Amino acid sequence: MPNNNDKQAFIFDVFGTVVNWRGSIIAQGETFGAKYNIQTDWEAFADKWRGKYQPFMDKVRNEEIPWTNLDALHRMALIELLEELDIHNLTEQQIEELLYFWHNLKPWSDTVAGLYRLKNKYIIAPMSNGNIRLMTDMAKNGNLPWDCILGAEVAKHYKPHPRSYLTAVELLGLTPDQVVMTAAHERDLLAAQKVGLKTAFVARPMEFGTLNTNLPDPQNHPFDFYATSFVDLAGQVGA
Amino acid sequence: MPNNNDKQAFIFDVFGTVVNWRGSIIAQGETFGAKYNIQTDWEAFADKWRGKYQPFMDKVRNEEIPWTNLDALHRMALIELLEELDIHNLTEQQIEELLYFWHNLKPWSDTVAGLYRLKNKYIIAPMSNGNIRLMTDMAKNGNLPWDCILGAEVAKHYKPHPRSYLTAVELLGLTPDQVVMTAAHERDLLAAQKVGLKTAFVARPMEFGTLNTNLPDPQNHPFDFYATSFVDLAGQVGA
Repeated sequence: MPNNNDKQAFIFDVFGTVVNWRGSIIAQGETFGAKYNIQTDWEAFADKWRGKYQPFMDKVRNEEIPWTNLDALHRMALIELLEELDIHNLTEQQIEELLYFWHNLKPWSDTVAGLYRLKNKYIIAPMSNGNIRLMTDMAKNGNLPWDCILGAEVAKHYKPHPRSYLTAVELLGLTPDQVVMTAAHERDLLAAQKVGLKTAFVARPMEFGTLNTNLPDPQNHPFDFYATSFVDLAGQVGA
Repeated sequence: MPNNNDKQAFIFDVFGTVVNWRGSIIAQGETFGAKYNIQTDWEAFADKWRGKYQPFMDKVRNEEIPWTNLDALHRMALIELLEELDIHNLTEQQIEELLYFWHNLKPWSDTVAGLYRLKNKYIIAPMSNGNIRLMTDMAKNGNLPWDCILGAEVAKHYKPHPRSYLTAVELLGLTPDQVVMTAAHERDLLAAQKVGLKTAFVARPMEFGTLNTNLPDPQNHPFDFYATSFVDLAGQVGA
């Protein structure tokens, strides 16, 4: 008979690791621009919006502003960005459509197949800085079969704060070494590792649109697993 | 293009509404008793364990003890119950097996089909006093296709505290009138209604093992919906 101690969990960074945020924002931007006749460079739009991601979370991390979820930070960043790009007079409905882009990001081609395999054997959950509603919509739109939704919002601390990872571990009723943090970003994994979690690096060399040749060395790295896709990861862990 | 405002949510009481807790505890108890040669009346065991549910949550509600999740309250109640029933010398492994009973409760026969239909059109999530890990295991064991897991643990308030319902509404990014609390228990629904949620009563006349003839009147009740099953409810809301 199974019990709590038999089960382990994989938790996942989402933006860049599970989904192709950049390609998805650009594609939705081009559709939006054609629909409303708004001319801008949508690649630059995507990169600049994402460029405001860390600075806006820093306002929360530094306690300049109280806890604010990512949807609200994305809105603040967008207002600033639209000014910078000289895009004026958008309606509230159009602003909402732009914000919804983040709820509708496309998984990498191996993501869904890999998650279904991992889910057969492990608990799988997002461990993202994105809020619960954002992750919920993304899962419905992208067929991501999460068992539950964890992440910064339940901890009220953005990654890489130790409490963000440890709250997820506690809610899972596990010890840190029973949980594998999975990400395409070394900083995220090293922060999780520092508080005792296991780690899996998944290479996403096209996250930023051009081939990233500065990935960790597959032969010499500090992680428990190093995978080229979620399907590869599932195979490595017997799922 | 969809946006946040288009989507509504159904949130669910779980013990009694989604799953048949009593029948499932009895069945698992009988298997456990045969395996370990422990003689007891498993119907009484189920009813007495459940009988300690509200009193133990009251200790948290009354601030006699700090926030304690339901798995931990179930353990405290079980230790007391085993004393009362003169069941002694169980191993920690056996205690864990008993506690896992609550993670492995069987859905009512209409539950899964109804949830899949509702999920096509709405966000669906448990709004239970059970903790996230308990709900996660139950979903995996019972094929419950939740979009996310909400409930008392994310609010750190047990139902029927207003903050339990309102925290779920806030995490969904919705207003209370966009969320339907669904339960087989009037008290739960009336508490949710009081803070502005919509309500759906689902009749579960066999929850306590004998036909309950004291259900609300189907023709004269204070709820937004009154259903005989989850499939009936899905039909009523066009899902």
